Amino acid sequence: MNGLFITIEGPDGSGKSTQIKKLADYLEESRIPYLLTREPGGTAVSDRIRSLILDPAHPEMADETEVLLYAASRAQHVKEKIVPALQEGTLVLCDRFVDASIAYQAYGLGIPVEDVTAINRFATGGLSPDRSYLIDISPEAGRERMVSRYTEEGLDRIEQKQLEYHERVRSGFRKIYSENKERFLLVDGNQTIDQVFDVIKKDIKLLLANRYN
Amino acid sequence: MNGLFITIEGPDGSGKSTQIKKLADYLEESRIPYLLTREPGGTAVSDRIRSLILDPAHPEMADETEVLLYAASRAQHVKEKIVPALQEGTLVLCDRFVDASIAYQAYGLGIPVEDVTAINRFATGGLSPDRSYLIDISPEAGRERMVSRYTEEGLDRIEQKQLEYHERVRSGFRKIYSENKERFLLVDGNQTIDQVFDVIKKDIKLLLANRYN
Repeated sequence: MNGLFITIEGPDGSGKSTQIKKLADYLEESRIPYLLTREPGGTAVSDRIRSLILDPAHPEMADETEVLLYAASRAQHVKEKIVPALQEGTLVLCDRFVDASIAYQAYGLGIPVEDVTAINRFATGGLSPDRSYLIDISPEAGRERMVSRYTEEGLDRIEQKQLEYHERVRSGFRKIYSENKERFLLVDGNQTIDQVFDVIKKDIKLLLANRYN
Repeated sequence: MNGLFITIEGPDGSGKSTQIKKLADYLEESRIPYLLTREPGGTAVSDRIRSLILDPAHPEMADETEVLLYAASRAQHVKEKIVPALQEGTLVLCDRFVDASIAYQAYGLGIPVEDVTAINRFATGGLSPDRSYLIDISPEAGRERMVSRYTEEGLDRIEQKQLEYHERVRSGFRKIYSENKERFLLVDGNQTIDQVFDVIKKDIKLLLANRYN
């Protein structure tokens, strides 16, 4: 694979989407060809799966079902979009990937980490990012940002879960980071938008210099 | 679990649906409480997944996606319907289960049997039928029955696949049978409807006598 594969991870309300937008703008200005995509959507099939996962009409959804649906969506996303782009040498910027499933489903829901890992290894064919940015923020601060954006009723099925769950997700992300430090850059999400982006930009400049120059 | 868990398996066009109907009628007459259900549907979530899997609008669906979607649908089906019914002592009659995934996806599509098995073990929590009926028929005879029912355009995405694929599925089913003879009853699907049903009825009478008398 010739393209760089970059993922951005972080709990809800971490400011992930804003940072991705800024990063995409930066790549645009720098004339680096890139593909911006997101989990769990990204293709027609994945988007149909995504809308089912997030539909608040299904509170009866079993945790195992959720794990397998995210993995199904990811399998399609990897095969149809991510791998072909990387093969063409395109930089792929992906909003969430396997780490999010491990944080939300294994650590958050309490499903064994090894099950979620094995299912996702099958889904991705073992594809792993070259670099992952983890924007770290406390669940309280994250929720505050979310609720200021939407009314409480406007949150999706995952976002509506209890604070305790989001605390497990956050410490899950930190655990994943500590076990994969060579791949991750941990960024303090309590800083201003520009401060967060400066950290990411500095790192990506270095990655691009190593890869393309 | 107190209820008997019975599955009916067989390639497309094997006459499976007719036999299930006859079996359900028989249970009705015998006043045995039962739940009739089917794979990959059976619940609101599973039915949404089912319609996505079978939608001919998605020829781009990756094989791994298909495996994971079937497993997701099954996880919901097991947790929401099958396990609660078995716990209440109800006989559960299920149109296809894990064996179908191993036949269609592992043997049919060429995905490693151990991957499909592991993913489905996660999905079902290890639940296995007490008895499985395999109605065996050649792909040619199966297809002939199918095409007489629908026009070629009326077949769903799975049914439209090539004969060679259906040949692999059939020999996959026979392999699964030969490795699980204590659980399976193999029935020759080339017999008349009544002949096939007589074999199944004789066996289920014995099972019921052992379980309930």
